[in-house]
Amino acid sequence: MAPTSDVLTADRILEATEEVLRRHGPAKATVVDVARALGVSHGSVYRHFRTKTALREAVAQRWLDRTHQGLAGIVADGDLAPAERLRTWCRALFETKRRRSVGDPELFATFGVLAEENSAIVDRHVADLTGQLTEIVRAGVAGGGFRPSLDPEATAAALLDATSRFHAPYHAREWQRPGTGERLETLLDLLVAGLRAS
Amino acid sequence: MAPTSDVLTADRILEATEEVLRRHGPAKATVVDVARALGVSHGSVYRHFRTKTALREAVAQRWLDRTHQGLAGIVADGDLAPAERLRTWCRALFETKRRRSVGDPELFATFGVLAEENSAIVDRHVADLTGQLTEIVRAGVAGGGFRPSLDPEATAAALLDATSRFHAPYHAREWQRPGTGERLETLLDLLVAGLRAS
Repeated sequence: MAPTSDVLTADRILEATEEVLRRHGPAKATVVDVARALGVSHGSVYRHFRTKTALREAVAQRWLDRTHQGLAGIVADGDLAPAERLRTWCRALFETKRRRSVGDPELFATFGVLAEENSAIVDRHVADLTGQLTEIVRAGVAGGGFRPSLDPEATAAALLDATSRFHAPYHAREWQRPGTGERLETLLDLLVAGLRAS
Repeated sequence: MAPTSDVLTADRILEATEEVLRRHGPAKATVVDVARALGVSHGSVYRHFRTKTALREAVAQRWLDRTHQGLAGIVADGDLAPAERLRTWCRALFETKRRRSVGDPELFATFGVLAEENSAIVDRHVADLTGQLTEIVRAGVAGGGFRPSLDPEATAAALLDATSRFHAPYHAREWQRPGTGERLETLLDLLVAGLRAS
């Protein structure tokens, strides 16, 4: 029996692809580079991921899952009032994206490329985030002082739209400017006031 | 005396540059192309605009002025209550940008390139828009039912941030999706409620 590390799993391919993307960037990284890094034929890689796009999407999905794993915990945090949950969640999303755009620029750029292509991964990611915000709005309407007339899903979409400048990858360059965190706080004050208004 | 049309004015150069940008796109258009279109040497163009960047910025400025000339009228429209002025202004900004991104894609792309370079033109444009929103917020605080505790300038910046998805050129691809206008309306409802909340 071959030792575990010799078995070509999807996970090993994804790890190698991340490294290749970090080294070459999304424009230049190829499946052949990934196969070479693993010491296998590119046919072996294609047996796990049918196309280069499928591979890149799977890497982006894994990276997104890892990047945003803290957000679900905030949604579920009953110790925070819904308005505070919303603020904490938006700050966490912004800080995580800002950190990644600086600390892991090649994978961040990969995600940006996928966003420009309107990929299914990005659509699913946006749906996930909207779902989490919907839960927060629902909790706020149920007893957190938010207006009962709010439609939780439409409101969640509006909140995600309203904070685009602080999470959409196109805006990454703006996140380094001084005062960006304060601008998010002013925006959150306005949004929370809008959710509470009677 | 030479007839007026033979005098090389800054305006004639800008008009020719617009045409060259439309034909070649921002990546390929050169000052030599502009000079050729005018039947002059590129030195003559450089006497009016010292660098290619200066020329491109002047074209973008002219295009922005033309594109957004209707907005100031909305700010000054005393027949509209401030909340309605805000809605009308945001809709007009969105609709104008959406129309330009489809109908004049090369100049829109030029503006996008300048935005990515954080050019002074874009900074000034953002400052203009923030100034107009500041006036609307001031009018709202003075007697339009907006909260008196609002800081008009910081609130104006928050409103511009909040609507980034509907005016920042990076998001142009999203503007063609069905339901985008409705999403802006939901966002405006939330923002107006936040401005009015006591």
